Amino acid sequence: KDRARLLISCKDQPGIVAAVSNFLYEYGANIVQSDQYSIDPEGGLFFMRIEFILPDLKRQEEKLEEAFAAIGNQFRMDWRFAYAYDIKKMAIFVSREDHCLMELLWQWQAGDLVADIAVVISNHPDLGPTVEQFGIPFYHITVTKDAKNEAEQKQLKLLEEYEIDVSVLARYMQILSPTFISSQPERIINIHHSFLPAFVGAKPYERAYERGVKIIGATSHYVTDDLDEGPIIEQDVLRVNHNHNAEDLKRLGRSVERSVLARAVAWHLEDRVLIHKSKTVVFN
Amino acid sequence: KDRARLLISCKDQPGIVAAVSNFLYEYGANIVQSDQYSIDPEGGLFFMRIEFILPDLKRQEEKLEEAFAAIGNQFRMDWRFAYAYDIKKMAIFVSREDHCLMELLWQWQAGDLVADIAVVISNHPDLGPTVEQFGIPFYHITVTKDAKNEAEQKQLKLLEEYEIDVSVLARYMQILSPTFISSQPERIINIHHSFLPAFVGAKPYERAYERGVKIIGATSHYVTDDLDEGPIIEQDVLRVNHNHNAEDLKRLGRSVERSVLARAVAWHLEDRVLIHKSKTVVFN
Amino acid sequence: KDRARLLISCKDQPGIVAAVSNFLYEYGANIVQSDQYSIDPEGGLFFMRIEFILPDLKRQEEKLEEAFAAIGNQFRMDWRFAYAYDIKKMAIFVSREDHCLMELLWQWQAGDLVADIAVVISNHPDLGPTVEQFGIPFYHITVTKDAKNEAEQKQLKLLEEYEIDVSVLARYMQILSPTFISSQPERIINIHHSFLPAFVGAKPYERAYERGVKIIGATSHYVTDDLDEGPIIEQDVLRVNHNHNAEDLKRLGRSVERSVLARAVAWHLEDRVLIHKSKTVVFN
Amino acid sequence: KDRARLLISCKDQPGIVAAVSNFLYEYGANIVQSDQYSIDPEGGLFFMRIEFILPDLKRQEEKLEEAFAAIGNQFRMDWRFAYAYDIKKMAIFVSREDHCLMELLWQWQAGDLVADIAVVISNHPDLGPTVEQFGIPFYHITVTKDAKNEAEQKQLKLLEEYEIDVSVLARYMQILSPTFISSQPERIINIHHSFLPAFVGAKPYERAYERGVKIIGATSHYVTDDLDEGPIIEQDVLRVNHNHNAEDLKRLGRSVERSVLARAVAWHLEDRVLIHKSKTVVFN
Repeated sequence: KDRARLLISCKDQPGIVAAVSNFLYEYGANIVQSDQYSIDPEGGLFFMRIEFILPDLKRQEEKLEEAFAAIGNQFRMDWRFAYAYDIKKMAIFVSREDHCLMELLWQWQAGDLVADIAVVISNHPDLGPTVEQFGIPFYHITVTKDAKNEAEQKQLKLLEEYEIDVSVLARYMQILSPTFISSQPERIINIHHSFLPAFVGAKPYERAYERGVKIIGATSHYVTDDLDEGPIIEQDVLRVNHNHNAEDLKRLGRSVERSVLARAVAWHLEDRVLIHKSKTVVFN
Repeated sequence: KDRARLLISCKDQPGIVAAVSNFLYEYGANIVQSDQYSIDPEGGLFFMRIEFILPDLKRQEEKLEEAFAAIGNQFRMDWRFAYAYDIKKMAIFVSREDHCLMELLWQWQAGDLVADIAVVISNHPDLGPTVEQFGIPFYHITVTKDAKNEAEQKQLKLLEEYEIDVSVLARYMQILSPTFISSQPERIINIHHSFLPAFVGAKPYERAYERGVKIIGATSHYVTDDLDEGPIIEQDVLRVNHNHNAEDLKRLGRSVERSVLARAVAWHLEDRVLIHKSKTVVFN
Repeated sequence: KDRARLLISCKDQPGIVAAVSNFLYEYGANIVQSDQYSIDPEGGLFFMRIEFILPDLKRQEEKLEEAFAAIGNQFRMDWRFAYAYDIKKMAIFVSREDHCLMELLWQWQAGDLVADIAVVISNHPDLGPTVEQFGIPFYHITVTKDAKNEAEQKQLKLLEEYEIDVSVLARYMQILSPTFISSQPERIINIHHSFLPAFVGAKPYERAYERGVKIIGATSHYVTDDLDEGPIIEQDVLRVNHNHNAEDLKRLGRSVERSVLARAVAWHLEDRVLIHKSKTVVFN
Repeated sequence: KDRARLLISCKDQPGIVAAVSNFLYEYGANIVQSDQYSIDPEGGLFFMRIEFILPDLKRQEEKLEEAFAAIGNQFRMDWRFAYAYDIKKMAIFVSREDHCLMELLWQWQAGDLVADIAVVISNHPDLGPTVEQFGIPFYHITVTKDAKNEAEQKQLKLLEEYEIDVSVLARYMQILSPTFISSQPERIINIHHSFLPAFVGAKPYERAYERGVKIIGATSHYVTDDLDEGPIIEQDVLRVNHNHNAEDLKRLGRSVERSVLARAVAWHLEDRVLIHKSKTVVFN
């Protein structure tokens, strides 16, 4: 399809929208959706996402980007065009629990998640057969305390080999090293099984049970060096009560984890998420 | 404040956004928020709401509108500017139940609802003292089967006298005549105590109880001649179970009615609601 | 496990709880959970569900039921014991859409749905391979207008052959005949893709879109002769807006359909649902 | 009304329900509602709440309690009868923000909150006129760093004078001393304007904005010496997005704070909340 998204962030100033919409109009682009947001209308930051259709887009890509560079320079924008036909290559990291993985595979199979799921990587062999039924290569890379670095080197090699654009940690119960993370900036999405910033770290359901909360949740965020502190993409919650023990919370929480992660991944794939410092702007 | 909203609807066609944003840019307007929606990107209908700040706006109003008319004509737009300093005059109609009325008065007092609540009209005298505590004139106009027309004439006279822009039926348990409604097109907002289109008409909570639903709701909509069929502005729901009898549903439902109506009225006051046939576009 | 549930409904009257709890106490049963509900505390109907553990239960089954019959007679109860080791045999009916089927299979595989999924029946061959991957027999029975009766005879034969306790219509897009339904009283669970009683019948998402609702939903209910009028077990909803067309509603609605049906089926399997006339009492 | 609630907690053991239900049966009590919960069915803790109607209850109170003491001793229960005609005396503490106060006064006036709101105490004079319109005495007690103890002494004297059963901190922006709290054990209910344990302490909305959460919430809990760590009674949440700044979160959050606090207070007044260590069992 001749569809693309133009993503912009820059200092807010008069004339941005006029310049961009004139540009697209002159190229004959049909704007399908347009969203914008200014942190502080008078002198703050400006974010924009425009989805448009332009006949024969593939052939005009280069020319379009060259021409837009002038506007980009004028307003000192961070900008990029994302073409819908450039399907993003995705890697999924899992451990033993399959619910988040299955939700992604399923939505992908149903056509709701437009990605090329190129590879699944796990520190356990258990989910191999399941993944291979979907026709996706599965790699079991053991992660041990002593050889974590080695394991990450293998993982990074796979990401390179498969030209991965985005990695999804679908309940991958390992902490990635700063080296690994810094090599994939804003390209790793995690699901944390709590309503962050409540219950950062390990065993959130056990701690939710101990605290006696009446609502549990899940949070999908970009991974940064600070554990569970990356920019939040999506969150959701579920009502619980005194009848539910920690095991119940885990079981019930799975459905929230699944849907929160799937939404976050879909929005990333559709270039709906802009990151600004430790927060996200989500145009959905 | 020098703040206004420009509301546009027209046939979708290339160049609209460019023309409008150029126009505002040349006037030195600072766009605070901009939302748009096309029913069908290729050849359907286009809706837009732009909120902007323009220094010394009051003095430029006339010139601005005259100048914009050219663009309006070119694209055959329905368009209007709504100035934030033109506070809308509001009438509230009530019967005996006070919860929706109180929520509106309260949010108004807290500054969350920017309106001039000019008058409260009721077919019962009960809520007079409450309303007058807020310094708002209260009119008790009896409505009887035989003299409904007379009552409506009195009500319409009040709407005229107080130059009312919008009437809110805050659990006003009377059906308005087509004559009344057609004199106030797209200017009457009702709260219906069910999740429409479920339980159109009378006694929705009793019928919800009879049907054994597990969720109840409330719906705020513009009033049209077709009972409970007007364009829906907002809806919300609440979980219930077999323990709740019809009285419980009524009691619990009050909180949903209150918040749904208050949100719908706020969006109307902020010119966030565009009506298209039997539906609304809500930019919120 | 030595776990069972005792389900009771009868006219409310003094002494029921005392009699039942004495009975279980004398047998040495350990009550794990107990729920009760009276429609009208003074002279209405009484419903009770007691989950208990009784060592060596299997061997005492018969004796227990014989002994309890005395109490049952005294209070003119409808009563039954449901033993946790008597795993219910389930049939799933599907057409072409797989999301509800997959959710059930998945939760079943994860151990969250305790049933013996004995057979999947479809009027289309499409989902055969998927089902067979789970090791479950799949039967494709064509349903045509002219030979509907024949098809239902084949289906009923399968239900008999596999000794089915409960049939789940997981988006089975066929209307069952009164004959079929009356042969499976309170044993067929359906998922309707709307928030009943809104949008009874065909194409609910299209009609929700036409009506411009701001919330869509799904409803799981027991199937009766009156289309979409059977006792509701569970409902849930999802917020939508003007941006969503009918196709979007369908896509988004799938996640609600999945979770609502799975919850309803789980509650049925755990004997948490008591039917009274056109409504349910759900002890969850 | 001849209605009472019997509240029990003790070590779980066989025969409790039988003993209690026999006791009530022999007294001719009609059980309206009964809820129970065991933390660990085999050898853990047991909680029970029975609501019953007993003709001529007032005259039998003493006899009933004396007789029940035998059962209480046998099972080493913590137990108490709460009679519906013993309306609880409530004090409300406020600072300047009125939304939580108003919600309580309003639900009280509507008859949804069955309490005797005996006094409102504030560290600011602002809300005096509002409170007095409801016919409730209002006391302005200044709280300064240096004379906090003095202020608390005045407050405690009022609680004693008005024979207060429960104090509600309706956005009372002062931290109470351990002395004050220990004199009112399990009798002070607070509303915290975050989804605890996220954002313990001051300025939760500002911190929620900084963190970029997609959902905000409110928590009602019993007050203990550990700030914001007391047993949680109720929580609820609200979806927000990047468009909302800290001020918006505050404004939107008010509606969640109101409803969460009102529900928690109602459940406390109806003796639906049992405290166990740092958690609650809520029978609702």
